[in-house]
Amino acid sequence: MEGKIIKIEGGTVTTPRGFQSGGVAAGIKGEGKLDLGLLSSVVPCAAAGVFTTNVVRAAPVLLSQQHLRSGVAQAVVANSGCANACTGEAGMEDAHEMARLVATKLGLSPQSVVVASTGVIGHPLPMEKIGAGIEQVDLSTGGGHRFAEAILTTDRGPKEVAFAFNVDGRAITIGGVAKGAGMIHPNLATMLIFLTTDAPVEIGFLRHSLQLAAETSFNMLTVDGDTSTNDSVFILANGEAGGAVLDGSTPGSAEFQRALELTCIELSKAIVRGAEGASKLIEVIVDGAQSTEDARQIARTIAGSSLVKTAVHGNDPNWGRILAAAGRSGVTFAPEKADVYIGELKVMQAGRPLSFDWQQGIAQLDREEVVLRLALNHGPASAVAWGCNLSEEYVTINSAYTT
Amino acid sequence: MEGKIIKIEGGTVTTPRGFQSGGVAAGIKGEGKLDLGLLSSVVPCAAAGVFTTNVVRAAPVLLSQQHLRSGVAQAVVANSGCANACTGEAGMEDAHEMARLVATKLGLSPQSVVVASTGVIGHPLPMEKIGAGIEQVDLSTGGGHRFAEAILTTDRGPKEVAFAFNVDGRAITIGGVAKGAGMIHPNLATMLIFLTTDAPVEIGFLRHSLQLAAETSFNMLTVDGDTSTNDSVFILANGEAGGAVLDGSTPGSAEFQRALELTCIELSKAIVRGAEGASKLIEVIVDGAQSTEDARQIARTIAGSSLVKTAVHGNDPNWGRILAAAGRSGVTFAPEKADVYIGELKVMQAGRPLSFDWQQGIAQLDREEVVLRLALNHGPASAVAWGCNLSEEYVTINSAYTT
Repeated sequence: MEGKIIKIEGGTVTTPRGFQSGGVAAGIKGEGKLDLGLLSSVVPCAAAGVFTTNVVRAAPVLLSQQHLRSGVAQAVVANSGCANACTGEAGMEDAHEMARLVATKLGLSPQSVVVASTGVIGHPLPMEKIGAGIEQVDLSTGGGHRFAEAILTTDRGPKEVAFAFNVDGRAITIGGVAKGAGMIHPNLATMLIFLTTDAPVEIGFLRHSLQLAAETSFNMLTVDGDTSTNDSVFILANGEAGGAVLDGSTPGSAEFQRALELTCIELSKAIVRGAEGASKLIEVIVDGAQSTEDARQIARTIAGSSLVKTAVHGNDPNWGRILAAAGRSGVTFAPEKADVYIGELKVMQAGRPLSFDWQQGIAQLDREEVVLRLALNHGPASAVAWGCNLSEEYVTINSAYTT
Repeated sequence: MEGKIIKIEGGTVTTPRGFQSGGVAAGIKGEGKLDLGLLSSVVPCAAAGVFTTNVVRAAPVLLSQQHLRSGVAQAVVANSGCANACTGEAGMEDAHEMARLVATKLGLSPQSVVVASTGVIGHPLPMEKIGAGIEQVDLSTGGGHRFAEAILTTDRGPKEVAFAFNVDGRAITIGGVAKGAGMIHPNLATMLIFLTTDAPVEIGFLRHSLQLAAETSFNMLTVDGDTSTNDSVFILANGEAGGAVLDGSTPGSAEFQRALELTCIELSKAIVRGAEGASKLIEVIVDGAQSTEDARQIARTIAGSSLVKTAVHGNDPNWGRILAAAGRSGVTFAPEKADVYIGELKVMQAGRPLSFDWQQGIAQLDREEVVLRLALNHGPASAVAWGCNLSEEYVTINSAYTT
């Protein structure tokens, strides 16, 4: 089944049929950088979102949650450079205005437009620049790359991906772009994800699929543990591929779910790789747990541990930190049954140190993708989390003045 | 009432009557550093402990928990350089042997000796060195300082304190020493606390008092979020001050509670100040919360946020990070009612930014003790947490090889 899902090189949000996109330098970030992006479908889409769990939510998040209640949307507008967070009533009005301006340009209702912003918080959106920018954007089926660039703040580069699979001889494509989490100067660490598909998807199944996919990908991602006021994941499904509607039981539903997960995991890993001050992707595998929730909790705690992250940074095969992080995760397990692997090297067995070649341990860590595995030998469940090394550069970047 | 509690300059664990202590260089750490300490009382003590919540617990923690079940102890032995953690059955036997050796030296039962270790994990204790060291230690009423030094790993220096108050004309003294949490190379971040008092204390009240004091002090301390396998807090109360037994309702009980809290808070702040790679103490005050647990949770999350810690490091009055950290703490509150203060400067009111002099904001952060305050204006409860800045030096120290 999995073999049927193929990755499309150079794929992005406009790879699925019937999507157009574009981006302009509206002057919000300055320096001529793209900072305003527009994405639209030729027809109304089934649309869903997953948003930050932070109690403090930015205006665009509140507005998009409202607009997605209907389960229908046709366009997305996103800006970087200003998060429109902690901006009160005026900020809500600005988010509404962004939706209205896009609706006017595209001949849609404002309710069918979702809005996302990222950048500094506590500052009002420069609405004149945003209005002029929305007017200027040219939409095209090749415009996904410009959209992917327009949503970045201090990310190292755009993050784009697409996967395709066949149902009854029809090709279905899922595309996505991301703006990376964590370690973001000058302000909050925001994660924005935009997903598109030409699959025909029933809204209940779409919402459920997105939730599940987010749980195994974006929710298993830790850069510095700070959840933003603006984190948002959107998906638009326009049905342009044709065929029977995917509702969870119809043929192709399982492939859709799996392809969506692959898309989200690929974007998650790209976010970690692109995090400022990070030079290594850490993949933490926890297996043998009693429940998936247990495995996830432990994997996230290990991936988020400052001591684990600094040990990986310095190529220090200090497995005690891995076990100790697991131990404080809040999950009960039997340390005397647990094994620890650094890369392919088993360094602890049944809770006891194994003697191993230290140079081999260093070698397992001295690479761009480091795998740490904790086998609990305790149950059937497993999980994977992703994080990055904690470097001096991270501190330097994040301690610089906002002005 | 609080005015009656006075701090004793140069106070330590042997400041209360009837305690003797000492420390030797047993060769566990090498380089002639003190690494084995002994503390004993002239009479049996009411004794209690609070231990790590980590699922992975070191042998000395397991043994001391057993020995404290009786509520009585008379001596403490502690070593640095080796944590005796992840050492299995042999490690348990070594911890027992340490208690037996001390018991033989002092003519006590092994059950009345508690044991603590800190240092690298996964290595067996060098029992010959420990045996010889225990034999060598000279105990004296001035020996608290040597004990305080013997428990250190890479702490910047010893942490000692004593407070005294009067009950019915009798002076009661509480003394304490700490080995500092977090940021500890080469292995785990262990916190060890040893408290002594000459107060006569009923064991139930002693346990309750210690728990309460730990909750407002050590539990509100965050250095890097990594809880150790060896964290332990001990208290021995020998009653040598005389007078009526403190049981929670008798005169002096409230002063005892308060003095114990002051002792624990003073040691907590000393731990943060002495953390490697840290140059600033951050005090986070959260008030106006609906419950103490809510206030504590929020305060700890702010004090532990990498983005807050780096902002303080760089003197960046980036209040958005404070509010965002509070928002992800898991506690529900109304951001639109919240005020934020950086030092004495109010930077956010009712969830909206205030315009303030940026240079003044920088000045509030450019000091050794930084106070951040979040006023929720939501309820009657408050809490204080302590943390430190996150510096490039932290990363450098913690990413170095263990060997």
